[in-house]
Amino acid sequence: MSYLNETHDPGLQSWVASANVADNGFPIQNLPFGVFRPAGSTEAFRVGVAIGDKVLDLAALAKAAPWSGAAAEALAACDAPELNGLMALGQTHWSALRLALSRALRAGSSEQSLLEPLLTNVAQAELGLPARIGDYTDFYISLHHATAVGKQFRPDNPLLPNYKWVPIGYHGRASSIGVSGQQFPRPIGQTRPTAEGDAPAFGPCRRLDYELELAVFVGPGNAQGDRLDIADAEAHAFGLCILNDWSARDLQAWEYQPLGPFLAKNFASTISPWVVTLEALAPFRTAFKRDASDPQPLPYLTSDANDTSGAFDVALDVLISTEKSRAEQQAPATLSSSNFKEAYWSVAQMLTHHTVNGCNLQAGDLLGTGTLSGPAGGQEGSLLELNQGGKKPIKLPWGEERVFLEDNDEVTLRARCSKAGYPTISFGTCVGKVLPARL
Amino acid sequence: MSYLNETHDPGLQSWVASANVADNGFPIQNLPFGVFRPAGSTEAFRVGVAIGDKVLDLAALAKAAPWSGAAAEALAACDAPELNGLMALGQTHWSALRLALSRALRAGSSEQSLLEPLLTNVAQAELGLPARIGDYTDFYISLHHATAVGKQFRPDNPLLPNYKWVPIGYHGRASSIGVSGQQFPRPIGQTRPTAEGDAPAFGPCRRLDYELELAVFVGPGNAQGDRLDIADAEAHAFGLCILNDWSARDLQAWEYQPLGPFLAKNFASTISPWVVTLEALAPFRTAFKRDASDPQPLPYLTSDANDTSGAFDVALDVLISTEKSRAEQQAPATLSSSNFKEAYWSVAQMLTHHTVNGCNLQAGDLLGTGTLSGPAGGQEGSLLELNQGGKKPIKLPWGEERVFLEDNDEVTLRARCSKAGYPTISFGTCVGKVLPARL
Repeated sequence: MSYLNETHDPGLQSWVASANVADNGFPIQNLPFGVFRPAGSTEAFRVGVAIGDKVLDLAALAKAAPWSGAAAEALAACDAPELNGLMALGQTHWSALRLALSRALRAGSSEQSLLEPLLTNVAQAELGLPARIGDYTDFYISLHHATAVGKQFRPDNPLLPNYKWVPIGYHGRASSIGVSGQQFPRPIGQTRPTAEGDAPAFGPCRRLDYELELAVFVGPGNAQGDRLDIADAEAHAFGLCILNDWSARDLQAWEYQPLGPFLAKNFASTISPWVVTLEALAPFRTAFKRDASDPQPLPYLTSDANDTSGAFDVALDVLISTEKSRAEQQAPATLSSSNFKEAYWSVAQMLTHHTVNGCNLQAGDLLGTGTLSGPAGGQEGSLLELNQGGKKPIKLPWGEERVFLEDNDEVTLRARCSKAGYPTISFGTCVGKVLPARL
Repeated sequence: MSYLNETHDPGLQSWVASANVADNGFPIQNLPFGVFRPAGSTEAFRVGVAIGDKVLDLAALAKAAPWSGAAAEALAACDAPELNGLMALGQTHWSALRLALSRALRAGSSEQSLLEPLLTNVAQAELGLPARIGDYTDFYISLHHATAVGKQFRPDNPLLPNYKWVPIGYHGRASSIGVSGQQFPRPIGQTRPTAEGDAPAFGPCRRLDYELELAVFVGPGNAQGDRLDIADAEAHAFGLCILNDWSARDLQAWEYQPLGPFLAKNFASTISPWVVTLEALAPFRTAFKRDASDPQPLPYLTSDANDTSGAFDVALDVLISTEKSRAEQQAPATLSSSNFKEAYWSVAQMLTHHTVNGCNLQAGDLLGTGTLSGPAGGQEGSLLELNQGGKKPIKLPWGEERVFLEDNDEVTLRARCSKAGYPTISFGTCVGKVLPARL
């Protein structure tokens, strides 16, 4: 399955001038989907597509119904406050809509006069949660993260025996997922007693962390009892966004046995507003790098296409700003940089594994990757790794230090795809801010 | 907070004759809510209330709008395919609707002629999933279950140190929750390798189990960042239903470290169609039995009302039938009987703990109790306990044995409240069946 087609032509230019600026991130080769409304309004969100520094109102375009066939059906599904309808349609429809949008937004298009009045400056829009998320699952697909965290508990044997066989995942909380700009009070809860037999401590979390992740929005689902074939699994992935899986490490350490993380995670999770389709990411596919000593995954998790092109080269950054840095008008500081291509398991493997037991996925479900740490220093996807289990403070350029997050810290995650001779494909940013605990 | 009012008068009789039959389970003092449609139809489900062997069509009654005030507002919310709207309204509305229904269904009511045409025989109705379940959480509130399962792994130290402080819970899968009558193929997946370093086994689950639970349907939710006060928490509980949290023990043993159960649980969960309100359960409140050696829970989990009347006396049974027993027309065999009052944590404590970190609950969310085992032999809420970790086969009266569930086994969970001088309040049944694996 190759996605490369005329929409990926690196020479394409748009009549939206800002889309042609080098490295703007939202060129005509990107076309990510989201929902928006005028900033400050309370009207319903509308489906849109980003182009340069504008968003095209697809709900309004749907009413004009300029196309026919699958593109028209896909556009009609955009006359909605969320992307679930479009997500449910599947790849034929997504591709037809992408092609129609690419042609209509291309320099010289006869449809410019129809579309131009339907553009809004992104700066004047509020971007919403792209979909109604039925179920949220978080995976753990970075071997480097699993190893680094495992080392803190089991220095001699950091990786559990199941890791290289099972794409480990667990269910998270859908209701508390918010879009970039989300703010939340520091969570409160129980933490481990200082001496065994004592009462636990209770109060605001003291080891608050971020987790640098991407997440897959599920497209067409599967009926309960059915399972996806790895060869076809990616057809069930609409696209990817950025995810910050905020984590209260001290709450987690006390609560997580025997059933896993709960209150340590479910107070908030933040995603980016734009969903970049797998088709837009096709030029950035890459082979999996496995060690010769790694076991061959079981047959249901194996396909040639997955081995040769199932990974994606997506560069990731974490930045932080603080009350002090903002008061001093300092730029946010980069804490680490990583890449999705370092993950041990793929999008196709996450989808396939999730359904192997007959579990039904639905359009709009969200599958987080887990923290995407890389193998080297400077590629840690969480503070817990950067601070070596809370032992090493991190120096910030404006003279502060951080071990874990402090009140009013703002964390920005970024993701983008770049290579020579191709326009940069950006995921935009995923920003979230920690407010003081409500006592 | 006392719920006892005229709707609890044990002498009340209904003009629906079947509601007055001793121990029918659905007397005028019960009035559980659900959704139904004519059996065999594909029309939308409608909200109804059970009375005797009938269901009263509240969607149709809403159109007649016979009442005023809070009862009318609550009834208007029943003109819907699910209970979420009614659940969101809160206790004042629920109580007003219950009182109006109690008076209208009472023997001698002037509203009999209005309501009588709106009754359907339950036997001729299909009962649906009562609500759109946004998020599903499963707790672990039975000390006896936690101890019995813990003993299989840690004979000398079965209970983890957090158990008597933290109402342990984790997120489950909402999409695969079905209503009584649910059938599902035996799940397939990975299980632990026989020798360390070998590839895991792969195939149909060989240790398939049920879990006997109740579940709370959440009423009005809380805003993200807010938390519920234990004194007020029960006002956020609409009612209770029965839950079977099917579990693949062999999948679970291999996958659950370090993030908890996932594919071992999310293939299917079955609930009963009727939601019994907390108000209907008021006559069956009881005090918590704690040992003198048990620690006092932290203040946020403590209230006098919770200590004196936060538990509910609900008798629970598990029954099984098999292909052989049904062919021989044998009655299902009882595997165990337990009671909700033996739980270590309460409804109010589950709700309060879930939100202490600011996690937002929403109307229609489902909170499972976890397996409700009692302290004595015969009160085990799962096969894993009855078969002592898979070692002791259970003899069935028709000459078969079971260690774990076999294909075509059907499990029925029952729940009811009984006491001298008061009509039995039934939850009905929660039935589910294991089909052969789809290979």
